[in-house]
Amino acid sequence: MNDLGITVKKDEDFAEWYIQVVLKSNLLDYAPMKGFIVLKPYGYAIWEGIRGVADKRFKETGHHNAFLPTLIPESLLSKEAEHFEGFKPEVFWVTHAGNDELGERLALRPTSETLAYEIFSRWIRSYRDLPLKINFWNTALRAEIKSTKPLIRTSEFLWQEGHTVHASKEEAEQEAMLMLSIYREIMEEYLAIPVIAGYKSEREKFVGADYTLTLEALMPDGKALQMGTSHNLGQNFSKPFSIKFLDKDGKEQYAWQTSWGISWRLIGAMVMVHGDDKGLVLPPRIAPIQIVIVPIFYGDETKDSVIEKCKNLYAMLRDRFRVHLDDREEYTPGYKFNDWELKGIPLRVEIGPRDVKQGKVVLARRDDGKKVSVGDEELLDAVTNMLEDIQRSLYTRASEFLKSHTFSAFSYDEFKERVEHGFVRAYWCGSQECELRIKEETGADIRVIPFNVNDTDMGGEGMEEQGIDRDGDMICIYCSRNAEKIAYFARAY
Amino acid sequence: MNDLGITVKKDEDFAEWYIQVVLKSNLLDYAPMKGFIVLKPYGYAIWEGIRGVADKRFKETGHHNAFLPTLIPESLLSKEAEHFEGFKPEVFWVTHAGNDELGERLALRPTSETLAYEIFSRWIRSYRDLPLKINFWNTALRAEIKSTKPLIRTSEFLWQEGHTVHASKEEAEQEAMLMLSIYREIMEEYLAIPVIAGYKSEREKFVGADYTLTLEALMPDGKALQMGTSHNLGQNFSKPFSIKFLDKDGKEQYAWQTSWGISWRLIGAMVMVHGDDKGLVLPPRIAPIQIVIVPIFYGDETKDSVIEKCKNLYAMLRDRFRVHLDDREEYTPGYKFNDWELKGIPLRVEIGPRDVKQGKVVLARRDDGKKVSVGDEELLDAVTNMLEDIQRSLYTRASEFLKSHTFSAFSYDEFKERVEHGFVRAYWCGSQECELRIKEETGADIRVIPFNVNDTDMGGEGMEEQGIDRDGDMICIYCSRNAEKIAYFARAY
Repeated sequence: MNDLGITVKKDEDFAEWYIQVVLKSNLLDYAPMKGFIVLKPYGYAIWEGIRGVADKRFKETGHHNAFLPTLIPESLLSKEAEHFEGFKPEVFWVTHAGNDELGERLALRPTSETLAYEIFSRWIRSYRDLPLKINFWNTALRAEIKSTKPLIRTSEFLWQEGHTVHASKEEAEQEAMLMLSIYREIMEEYLAIPVIAGYKSEREKFVGADYTLTLEALMPDGKALQMGTSHNLGQNFSKPFSIKFLDKDGKEQYAWQTSWGISWRLIGAMVMVHGDDKGLVLPPRIAPIQIVIVPIFYGDETKDSVIEKCKNLYAMLRDRFRVHLDDREEYTPGYKFNDWELKGIPLRVEIGPRDVKQGKVVLARRDDGKKVSVGDEELLDAVTNMLEDIQRSLYTRASEFLKSHTFSAFSYDEFKERVEHGFVRAYWCGSQECELRIKEETGADIRVIPFNVNDTDMGGEGMEEQGIDRDGDMICIYCSRNAEKIAYFARAY
Repeated sequence: MNDLGITVKKDEDFAEWYIQVVLKSNLLDYAPMKGFIVLKPYGYAIWEGIRGVADKRFKETGHHNAFLPTLIPESLLSKEAEHFEGFKPEVFWVTHAGNDELGERLALRPTSETLAYEIFSRWIRSYRDLPLKINFWNTALRAEIKSTKPLIRTSEFLWQEGHTVHASKEEAEQEAMLMLSIYREIMEEYLAIPVIAGYKSEREKFVGADYTLTLEALMPDGKALQMGTSHNLGQNFSKPFSIKFLDKDGKEQYAWQTSWGISWRLIGAMVMVHGDDKGLVLPPRIAPIQIVIVPIFYGDETKDSVIEKCKNLYAMLRDRFRVHLDDREEYTPGYKFNDWELKGIPLRVEIGPRDVKQGKVVLARRDDGKKVSVGDEELLDAVTNMLEDIQRSLYTRASEFLKSHTFSAFSYDEFKERVEHGFVRAYWCGSQECELRIKEETGADIRVIPFNVNDTDMGGEGMEEQGIDRDGDMICIYCSRNAEKIAYFARAY
C-alpha cells in the first residue's frame, strides 16, 4: 500500500503532500503539455457537484446559460486597452488554419468580456432588454509563466464566467454583491471553507473593472488563496463596445456591467484545507460519494449473509444519500479502507458476520477516524446526523485555523514576522507605492480590504466604510503616513 | 410583427427559412468570426435538455465524465498517420503564447482520440483496469472550408465525445453498437426524428476506425443529415499509443477501442424536421418550456381574476411540467401568441375572463394549431395526454416523410431522378471507384449501408448480413458488375 498511499506528512512537506494527494486520489493527471492537467472521473465528479450547486443558484437568481466560441479576434480583444495590456503576456495565439495563415490572429479566450460584449451590444436596444444576465460554463486559457500547480494555477482551467448588463449603476453594484454572496454561500456552506470578503486594491483589481470584490481563504501553509471574484465594470466596457439602451424617457444611455467567476481552484482549496496525512477529506455536502459500504468476511460461510445485508443497506440508503457498495472481490477490506480514505469519502459503513448476527453496523468517520457501532434501526438517523456533524466540524476546524492565523501588526517588524504565518491586518495609507514596496520586501500583497473589521483589535475613525472606530496609532504600516484603510496582507498562490 | 416573424415559407426557400427560424426564435446568433456561432440562452437550454438525457443514459451504462485540455501537441496529433491526414486541412494551430513562439505547434482539438489515448496508456496496466469508459462534454474546432450553416456545420461546435477501452474485440463491438442504440433512442424518442442505422462505407468512415456505425435522418429538402456516429477503432490507436494490458494469464495484449459522438447538430435537425412557417416546433419531451400560460384581459376589472387563475394553474402545473407564465404587461396577447409560436412551445394555455367565469381554459397545440376548451378539473389529464400526443404526432409525421422519400432505384437513370428527392436504395458493387463516380456525377454519396433492408422492395442472396434474400437483378447501379451490398445514397449536409 505504501506507494499507493501518501508518503509525506501534510505539515512536513505541504507542496509534495498536495501533489501526492491530487494524483493518488485519482482526481487528476498531468497532460503531455507543461502546465496543463487532465481531470479524471473522480475529480470531474467533484466539479459536477460544485457546478450543480452554483448553476442552481445562478438560475434561481435569474441568470441563463449560453455558449460563446473559444476564439476571439485580436482586434476585439484589444478594444479595451487596459484589459488587453493585462492579458496580452499570457494569450495563446492561433495564426494558422490548416496550411493557411489567418488574416488576423485569433486569441484563445483568456476571459470572454470582449467577445461577449461585442455580441451583447447587438442584443440590447431598450431598457426592456435589461437586465441581461448570462453565464458561461467553459474554460479559460492563459499561458502560465509562473510555476504551475494542479487546480490552483494551470494554463487552462474549468470555470464559469457570468456577465450581466444593467440599466443603472446601483443595479450593477447590487448584482456584483449578490454574486459574491452566492459564492460565499457555496464556499462556506458546501465546501466548508471560511472566507474573508471585501475589495481588491486598485493594483490587484481585474483589469478594466471599476472595482473587484473578492473572497479570500487561508491555506494550511499560511498562504492566501483567491477563491472567487466579482467585478463591477461600471461603463468601462459599455463605452468602447457601444452597449447602449433607450431608457424609459427615450434617452440613449450607456449600460452598467458586471462579471464574476469561480473555477476548479475551489477543488484545490478543499484538498488543501481539509485533507490529512491519509489523503483527501471531502465535505459531505459536496462529496460525489458520501457513504461507502464495505463488506467484511473471511470464509465463504459468512459471505452470503454479509453481502445480503450490505445490499439491503445500500438499497435503503441510496434514495437519500450518494452511496457506493464496494463489493470488489479481488481486494481485502483493509485495502478498501485505505483506498476510500485516500479518496476522502466522509463516512464508511463496515459490515462483518458479527454485525449481521447482532443486527448492527459499524460507522467510521473520515474526518476524525472515530468508529461507532449502531443498531440497524438507528442507522438512517445516525448517518444523517453524522454527515451533518462532519460538515459542521470541517467548517469549524477551518474557521479556527483562519482565526488563529489572522494577526494584527502595528509595526513593520511585527508585520514581517507575522506574515510568515497567515493573514496580517495592517493600516495602510492607500498608496500603490507602499503596497508595491511591501510586496517586494516581504512577498505579501494586499489580498483584501475587508468590508468590516470591527470584530478585530483594530479600529480607525474615517474608515467608516469598513466599520472602523478610529483609535490608537492610525498610521501606515510601511510609510507611517496617515492610514486610510485596514488591509489584509498575505503571501498568496 | 412582420419583421419579427418568419417572412418566407418553409417549402419555398428552405435555406432562408432555416436561417430566419434559428435567428428569430432566439436560438443563436452569429459570432464576429466567420463560421462561428453563439448559442443564446434559449438555444443553450435545448442543448442542456439533450445533454441531460444523454448524460443520464451514459452514466446508467457505466460511463464517467472527465476533462481534457483544448490543445494537442502536433507530434501527438500526428501519431496515427491516417487520422492526422484526415484532420490536417482543418486544424487551427497555436504558434505563440504571449510574445513567445512555441517550440512545437499546438492544435485546437478537432477531436480528442490522440490526446485521450496518450493519457489512457498511462492509466491501463492490467485487465482489472478495463473496461475504461470515459466521456467528454466539450467543443471540437475544425476550420470549415465549405460553406457553413448554423448548428449544422460550424468551425466550433458543442458535442460529446465518448472514448472506451476494452479487453476484447467483441466487447468493443458491443460497446460501439450499444452507444448507437442509445443515440437512436434519444433521436427517435426525445427529438422525434426517425433515423436509418447502419455502417458507413470505407470511404466515409472515421479516419482511423475499423468501421463506423451511423444514424442518418432525412431533412425536408431531401438531403440527408448525419445525426451521430459510433466508431469501432479496433487496435488502430492502441498500437501507436501503446495501450496495452496484462490479461488474466499474465500475457501482454493491445486493447480494443471505440469512440462516439453527437453534437448540437441535433438541434439543427429538430428545427428542420419539425419547424413550420410560423417558426420552431419543439417535441414536448425536449422543449425547455412545454407549456406557456397567456392571460387575456381587456380592462382592469377582469385583470385580477384572470391573473389569479393563471397563477393558480402555474402552481398546479409546475411540479409536473416545464411551464412558463407570460405575465408581461407591455405586450398584447396576440404578440405573445406569435412570440411563443415562433419559439415552438408545444402547448399554450389561454385564460380569459369568460374562462374564469366558466371554470375552463383553452388549450392550443403548436403542432397542428388546434384549440380545445377544457374544464379546470380535466386540465391535468388533458395536458398530459396532449403533450404525449404531440410527441407521437411529430414522430409519425417525420416517419411518414422519411418513408415516402426513400426510394429504390434499379437503373442509373432512375437513381439520378430519385436522388433529387431523398434517399435512394441501390445495389452497389462495393468499389470506391463507383462510389466516387456517383458522387461526382450526382452529388450523392453513400450515407449508410443499413443493418437490415428486408422491409423494402429489394433483396439479395449473399447479402445475408443485411438480411437480404437474393432475387431480381443484383447488379451495381453504376458499373453493372455483381452487387455486394445495398446502400442508401443521398445528397447530404
